[in-house]
Amino acid sequence: MTITPAQETHPDHWKKAAAIRTLTLDAVAAANSGHSGMPMGMADVATVLYEKHLKFDAAAPGWPDRDRFILSAGHGSMLLYALLHLTGSPEMTLDELKNFRQWGARTAGHPEYGHAPGIETTTGPLGQGIATAVGFAMAEEVLRARYGRKLVDHYTWCIAGDGCLMEGVSQEAIGLAGKQELSKLIVLWDNNNITIDGTVDMADRTDQMARFRASGWSVFECDGHDPEEIDQAITEAKKSQKPSMIACRTHIALGSAAQDTSKGHGALTDAGLVADTKAAYGWHHGPFEVPADVKSAWEAIGARGAADHAAWRDRLDAVSASRQAEFARVMAGDPPKRLAATVRALKKSFAEDMPKLATRAASQKALDAINPIAPETLGGSADLTGSNNTKAGGIEVFEPGNRKGRYVHYGIREHGMAAAMNGLALHGGVKPYGGTFMCFADYARGAMRLSALMGVPAVYVLSHDSIGLGEDGPTHQPVEHLAMLRATPNTLVIRPADATETAEAWEIALEQKSTPSVLALSRQGTPALRDSYSAKNLTARGGYIMAEATGKRQAILMATGTEVAIAMEARKLLEADGIGTRVVSMPCWELFEQQDEAWRRKVLPAGPVRVAVEAGLRFGWDRWLCDERGRREKAGFIGMEGFGASAPAEVLYEKFGITAEAAAQKVRDLLG
Amino acid sequence: MTITPAQETHPDHWKKAAAIRTLTLDAVAAANSGHSGMPMGMADVATVLYEKHLKFDAAAPGWPDRDRFILSAGHGSMLLYALLHLTGSPEMTLDELKNFRQWGARTAGHPEYGHAPGIETTTGPLGQGIATAVGFAMAEEVLRARYGRKLVDHYTWCIAGDGCLMEGVSQEAIGLAGKQELSKLIVLWDNNNITIDGTVDMADRTDQMARFRASGWSVFECDGHDPEEIDQAITEAKKSQKPSMIACRTHIALGSAAQDTSKGHGALTDAGLVADTKAAYGWHHGPFEVPADVKSAWEAIGARGAADHAAWRDRLDAVSASRQAEFARVMAGDPPKRLAATVRALKKSFAEDMPKLATRAASQKALDAINPIAPETLGGSADLTGSNNTKAGGIEVFEPGNRKGRYVHYGIREHGMAAAMNGLALHGGVKPYGGTFMCFADYARGAMRLSALMGVPAVYVLSHDSIGLGEDGPTHQPVEHLAMLRATPNTLVIRPADATETAEAWEIALEQKSTPSVLALSRQGTPALRDSYSAKNLTARGGYIMAEATGKRQAILMATGTEVAIAMEARKLLEADGIGTRVVSMPCWELFEQQDEAWRRKVLPAGPVRVAVEAGLRFGWDRWLCDERGRREKAGFIGMEGFGASAPAEVLYEKFGITAEAAAQKVRDLLG
Repeated sequence: MTITPAQETHPDHWKKAAAIRTLTLDAVAAANSGHSGMPMGMADVATVLYEKHLKFDAAAPGWPDRDRFILSAGHGSMLLYALLHLTGSPEMTLDELKNFRQWGARTAGHPEYGHAPGIETTTGPLGQGIATAVGFAMAEEVLRARYGRKLVDHYTWCIAGDGCLMEGVSQEAIGLAGKQELSKLIVLWDNNNITIDGTVDMADRTDQMARFRASGWSVFECDGHDPEEIDQAITEAKKSQKPSMIACRTHIALGSAAQDTSKGHGALTDAGLVADTKAAYGWHHGPFEVPADVKSAWEAIGARGAADHAAWRDRLDAVSASRQAEFARVMAGDPPKRLAATVRALKKSFAEDMPKLATRAASQKALDAINPIAPETLGGSADLTGSNNTKAGGIEVFEPGNRKGRYVHYGIREHGMAAAMNGLALHGGVKPYGGTFMCFADYARGAMRLSALMGVPAVYVLSHDSIGLGEDGPTHQPVEHLAMLRATPNTLVIRPADATETAEAWEIALEQKSTPSVLALSRQGTPALRDSYSAKNLTARGGYIMAEATGKRQAILMATGTEVAIAMEARKLLEADGIGTRVVSMPCWELFEQQDEAWRRKVLPAGPVRVAVEAGLRFGWDRWLCDERGRREKAGFIGMEGFGASAPAEVLYEKFGITAEAAAQKVRDLLG
Repeated sequence: MTITPAQETHPDHWKKAAAIRTLTLDAVAAANSGHSGMPMGMADVATVLYEKHLKFDAAAPGWPDRDRFILSAGHGSMLLYALLHLTGSPEMTLDELKNFRQWGARTAGHPEYGHAPGIETTTGPLGQGIATAVGFAMAEEVLRARYGRKLVDHYTWCIAGDGCLMEGVSQEAIGLAGKQELSKLIVLWDNNNITIDGTVDMADRTDQMARFRASGWSVFECDGHDPEEIDQAITEAKKSQKPSMIACRTHIALGSAAQDTSKGHGALTDAGLVADTKAAYGWHHGPFEVPADVKSAWEAIGARGAADHAAWRDRLDAVSASRQAEFARVMAGDPPKRLAATVRALKKSFAEDMPKLATRAASQKALDAINPIAPETLGGSADLTGSNNTKAGGIEVFEPGNRKGRYVHYGIREHGMAAAMNGLALHGGVKPYGGTFMCFADYARGAMRLSALMGVPAVYVLSHDSIGLGEDGPTHQPVEHLAMLRATPNTLVIRPADATETAEAWEIALEQKSTPSVLALSRQGTPALRDSYSAKNLTARGGYIMAEATGKRQAILMATGTEVAIAMEARKLLEADGIGTRVVSMPCWELFEQQDEAWRRKVLPAGPVRVAVEAGLRFGWDRWLCDERGRREKAGFIGMEGFGASAPAEVLYEKFGITAEAAAQKVRDLLG
């Protein structure tokens, strides 16, 4: 009695796959937590992929031209950890497997980018992996076009489960990949018909193969436990000129008493069940024990790519030193050398011209200057190109017929765009930025959080950043979004006040190597406020004095973005009344928080009343209104108290009371 | 030369449709803002729908059994406003059209629920309408099963554009509707091949008809400018036993110089273009002028349903008075009469048993008690039923074979679930609650924001509300989510500390008529803290004294959820040191904010040091740490400073320093 025919017909394959399965059982049992069923179900597919197709060199997991393997069904993390261990990753020791899901281990419950080489991206929130994989595949196309196929020519593989395919973001990914004809993207669908609540058809009856075909994919099918069928399907998929999906019919928790059940999805920890399953596998070894012959076979797989890798290094050595250096620079994510000088030149011109510009328009001017000197940028927008001002600097459209294009029409797919941006950045060699209305950061949030968690230096260009959006109304007007974004760890939320701050914001964003940036940009025009050129990037201080009080300092007005101009107007009113008023521009709270206390006290000294002005909600502002012995009753806020409304922007500012007069009056009231 | 054949072959139809088109042109020109192209493109389809199929009575827009019409492509709001005006809605006067997109007008840039009868839901963020329509159609099935087809038997119609179909949430909606065989849901796809950036194929080449078919829909096609083809397609769709999609081939901005271009998507305000277009329509009337015969024809359409409506009222009158009252109660969204008594009884039992329970388990106990006495609840989960503890009180699964089931397997579709919940609640008669892990509120945020904006009293059951989730790791551990949710206007974020507060939270949530609630629930067990029964709902105060200081009050510990127990332990440590310490439970900031100042000062008096304890980020807490002359240096926070990690929950609390000892030490440090 065998579990699958391969157990007898392909005993070597079977043993290699069994090693994955039994390590999974052991690790989950040790942790008393985790997901056993998925690795047990997909072990055969993964074994064939690694043995026969995946281009990698276990000794050099950072090889830029390796195939990328993305485990979108991240709960099956033990599949990835077992593969890394078995193929000889130095970091993924047996001890790491034994410490699965424990404090400090590389083997987190879901694969966490940065925990170990070979974990290409963080997955777990379903659908993210497949959508991120699209970005990886796009990056490969971009770099192949730029550096040639001698240096860049690899596949992106993705294992996705039913959950991934039910999440809406998967549709955005499928549509984008289909349009972009990403022929080197191959998705292996773990078609096991089981989710946590039960069989898939309790919630979905979608014909997934037809669905992928409808978006321009090649679709293949195989018995996910038959190594020859798997190999054949993968071989065919590699030949396709379209992205491919292979539907792998599998049994979740194969060979266990929980096979084909939702119980099998979770942690199989019952000692008897584990023992019985191992016995059924013909596996008569202790916990975490992999016989030497099986381990050797896996290590041979891990070494399979070494020659390819050496040949690749030779090809790299053969290109010019400057080209090598450039390739190394962009893969390392270092900013372009001329970035600082370019931004300084732009700031000089702004200081001279003092342009009244929407900050989204200033952002376009920055990109006009930066894109030509930063070949690694890849811009785009979720169908709001003209509104986000993201197509700039003469870049062309990235599409199947023009892989040198550096502008992506992502479609009306904010979430898919953000996830693709993660993949583009994680691949290396590409610095992605992408635009939408700030309000629709809501849609992208699942992926934006992963940017922050992974430390992906993507740049989110979020225009129409307040009620200044005007007539489109409250569905399109962010009010809580600055708070939401600021609350997210490891995210720079930069809301520039004028053209100069916008240029500085871009410099900051492009200098980041492990932090995503949000540029919150206005729809409406706003005057130039920085009236003298400074080589220093003042925005990088997070908060700084935009205008000092005349005479005795009685009030400090804090503001961001377009409201700094309102604060400057309020200052005029107050100073005319003899009330010395400082204006502090606070374009980036996170950077201000990172300054030393001396700077923060200098900018926001105790004593004067404080009023913050921002066309958003107060939520979060108390951090700055009450600091340093500040008392609540000596602080105030001018901003929104709820959702916006549909009307011209200037009417909204007036009706919602976000005006210079209101800010000045608030100061007068506080001074009593 | 005619624009479409119908201009000659169906002159009466043409004129009615032209009225929509010209009102759109005039309103957009007056506003100098808006979207002309979509109403101009879909006017024929809408005219046929209203004239021949839509069941409605313009004089009684609140008729519970009316067909629901959802404009998912909400930027085409003038289509809806024109239809409401033309058919005789008393509220949608010509003046409203003239004030399109102006302050105070009912005619916001996008349709806003509550602005006028006939606006069934807020749309604008793309994809929301189609996903919300699924909820409307589900509600119809639920109520038809409960009250019979004599009282409930109507269609849900939805016009969706290319943008709606590119958004991922549409796939969740399509999949859910297909599985649920919602045969009375009919989507009219405005297939005009244009988006803001250009032609659809710049971003997408999906065969939408194949895609819908793949998820179990019936699919039809028509020339969207041929009234007979439109009628035929709709007639066929109504016969289908599946949800239907009709692909309507249309020309955006029909008949104008901008026809079939992305320019046509936006605001056509050029006077010459408007004049030329009207001339091409054969429309020789002034701005906002609709000739009497055309207006009469439209008003006749508006009155078409009056007889049906009267017959329906007769049928309603024929049912028993108690059934009528119950129908009226659930349609009005009034809470069940026995709610308060049921919750009190539950609280009594908790006060006696003092159970140590995860609050998600306490929530299940609450639902066990409430679901039997609240026939209007419709529960569900995004494939985490066993984890969210949402299937309770003996309710069965809602599915095509059992429309009396009250539990929805929404699938791995948080966004689609939330949008469907909006539709379920907006339809009336149903009180939806739905669960997922709190972290995946990220995925649902687009729809949850609309719950808040519309004032939809949906209940979001967000379990696993902190690092207490444990081994699944940082992708699944909310840290910024409480801040994000609290920052959202008109949303009650309730994080109960124990079983009693959980029961009270459910009472509050089910009493709401215009505010959504989030129940933030723990995975891990937590002790009962409320040790004496009180008939009063203390959670409704938002914050209250859980334990008073012994002797002189030197410190106040504030906490929410499972951290209240930690604060209680810290209090013991402090009191043992002779430091009088009050513990304040703050399960709902929004409700606490709504109390009068006297209550807030009573609970949080000036003087004592304040330390907040919450296993989330500090962001937002300064509101309570600094209030009432509180000084920053006399306040502290014990919580998270960044993302979580993968390890058992108790290890994480220890490693991240969220312990009673750490809280006590913080107080000692502050007292100096």
